Amino acid sequence: MARRILGIDPGSRITGFGVIDVIGQQRHYVASGCIRTPQGAPLTERVKVLVDGLFDVIATYRPTESAIEQVFVNVNPAATLMLGQARGACLSALVMRDLPVAEYTALQVKQSVVGHGKAPKEQVQYMVVTMLNLSGTPQADAADALAVALAHANHSGGAIGALARQGLRIKGGRLA
Amino acid sequence: MARRILGIDPGSRITGFGVIDVIGQQRHYVASGCIRTPQGAPLTERVKVLVDGLFDVIATYRPTESAIEQVFVNVNPAATLMLGQARGACLSALVMRDLPVAEYTALQVKQSVVGHGKAPKEQVQYMVVTMLNLSGTPQADAADALAVALAHANHSGGAIGALARQGLRIKGGRLA
Repeated sequence: MARRILGIDPGSRITGFGVIDVIGQQRHYVASGCIRTPQGAPLTERVKVLVDGLFDVIATYRPTESAIEQVFVNVNPAATLMLGQARGACLSALVMRDLPVAEYTALQVKQSVVGHGKAPKEQVQYMVVTMLNLSGTPQADAADALAVALAHANHSGGAIGALARQGLRIKGGRLA
Repeated sequence: MARRILGIDPGSRITGFGVIDVIGQQRHYVASGCIRTPQGAPLTERVKVLVDGLFDVIATYRPTESAIEQVFVNVNPAATLMLGQARGACLSALVMRDLPVAEYTALQVKQSVVGHGKAPKEQVQYMVVTMLNLSGTPQADAADALAVALAHANHSGGAIGALARQGLRIKGGRLA
């Protein structure tokens, strides 16, 4: 049975999503895009836009599992709190739709998609375009979300993927 | 028509909730308690416990509005992110049940319930017990949640309460 992975790059302003199909060793692009939360609007309204947006994506594309980037910002506590709230809203939407959720750090995504953890953003995007045979480059957050989905597709065949599907953090590199 | 307020004190380990009825100038205790998320469990499982727990509270007590403490921690970015995620999950549960959500800082809660913003935690709890005529002191997080609900009851009669109900932050003190 084909697996359909929903990848998510959570953000307090823009949350990217990307959906891919995994059939054996093949990965096929299904959809990608961004959910933009209205700036200046109350936090509760932004949370609602985010959750409703993800519900729409899940209802439309019916993924069988999901993967979300493990964010970490150190700019200031207020920004970290805000990002945490957005990520909490994303996780809520996923678990409420009973989707298995795997988590990957940005380092793991880069290692998986590009082959090393220090790859610049542009190289990740280039690999996303190449691996999914896209005719254009998706918006940056959507591309990041597709990269998370691809990382999950790569990892989740093995034992580390099984751990990640249980939500455990994977430290270390790409599976051989 | 009576208002029933659900107050929430979000936390990454323990989230307190408190439900009160507001009838004119009277406040009546309805219920309070804690939702404990399983430590060591994957984040997604903890988010699910939190969201499901709040859904249960909402289904059981049918509040007409909600108020949540505006948290802020500065211990370290990881703790701040974790707390943000818990708070994001709480907000998701509230907005998905179409509850109006007001936000109050700890300072505002203390000002409203005790009369000044530097009151120690014990004094807030004492006022909660007194104002709601409780026979015992609730668990600390449940008491904090009841204090948030009381603060909202006090504020939401006036213009600042109307702002808070729209999710706007209130800077400054208690309404005269």
